[in-house]
Amino acid sequence: MFSGAQFSLYVMSDDFVDVILGAVDAMGKPEDLRIESDDISTLVVGTPPRVFEAVQTAYAEACRRGGHVVLSALFSRGCPGEPDDPICTPGGPEASELPEPGVVPPSGIEVNAQFSLYPLGYPGYMEVIGREIQAVKAGTLFDGSKHFCTRLSGDLAHVFAAVYRAFESAARDSAHVVIHLTVSKGSPSN
Amino acid sequence: MFSGAQFSLYVMSDDFVDVILGAVDAMGKPEDLRIESDDISTLVVGTPPRVFEAVQTAYAEACRRGGHVVLSALFSRGCPGEPDDPICTPGGPEASELPEPGVVPPSGIEVNAQFSLYPLGYPGYMEVIGREIQAVKAGTLFDGSKHFCTRLSGDLAHVFAAVYRAFESAARDSAHVVIHLTVSKGSPSN
Repeated sequence: MFSGAQFSLYVMSDDFVDVILGAVDAMGKPEDLRIESDDISTLVVGTPPRVFEAVQTAYAEACRRGGHVVLSALFSRGCPGEPDDPICTPGGPEASELPEPGVVPPSGIEVNAQFSLYPLGYPGYMEVIGREIQAVKAGTLFDGSKHFCTRLSGDLAHVFAAVYRAFESAARDSAHVVIHLTVSKGSPSN
Repeated sequence: MFSGAQFSLYVMSDDFVDVILGAVDAMGKPEDLRIESDDISTLVVGTPPRVFEAVQTAYAEACRRGGHVVLSALFSRGCPGEPDDPICTPGGPEASELPEPGVVPPSGIEVNAQFSLYPLGYPGYMEVIGREIQAVKAGTLFDGSKHFCTRLSGDLAHVFAAVYRAFESAARDSAHVVIHLTVSKGSPSN
């Protein structure tokens, strides 16, 4: 299997370069991840839990530097066009391993977010999407449905746990799952 | 059918609020589009060509105000969970109507971009994706493959035409098509 993310950090400030470089540096250079940046996004390849953890780490670091900071991330697992990679070999997703969004330690960073789930190549994909949205609605983070995506609001760590849970849960039905996630902190619209 | 976009503009500058509000205003209030903004994104509902045109208009306006400006957009058509809407009734996609990316008038704005195409609910989706990537490679905008997405570089209007073409062409095979597009102008990484 191949799994990873492409993510971008957007810092609405004149000193955006320092904030972005510092945030990417915060992920370090762990041996179990492959990290590569270009002018548009940063690639992280590894197991899904490690990839989510790394992206959260980078975004949390950017948030701590203040201001209005947005994360846009594409998470993918099982794309048949990608090579198998030993760095990405998780066990199969098991419900007992999935986090409960409300019980992971909070980050102390309040965010608004929206995400779209795409189970690919699977005719029953709408049922999977509906099931995962219902799971989110059963929690405390749900902040409304929009066209094409679902809103979440709450602590950054809890939002990430909920999105990771949807990603892994959908993978029980569809070998190839993609999630696009946008997280916003400090918007002056609020 | 229901079709539209959720898009966000990211302006890496202290005066981001004015640039974003001005860019959204540049779309006007046309009767054939429904436009709604919240703190995370702006919704545009309408026929696919009009939606692409409106999003391009907003982003071009933001670009003209200078600096490093990024567009992140989700385009969707045919989602079975969405209501039919008369405002979205295009004719079926026909190849003869699809733009040739190189022949639309240029905008004068040079950008780097990447996009991901998701034909949903269709077991043959990888063939559709492969076909559309080949179509892009046959043109002059192709700027390399990345994990999970394809890079384009060139004039903003040509990039939009190429992405719109992939969107409509994929709709011949899959009733529900989503594209996520990121466009970047003025990155100091270049």
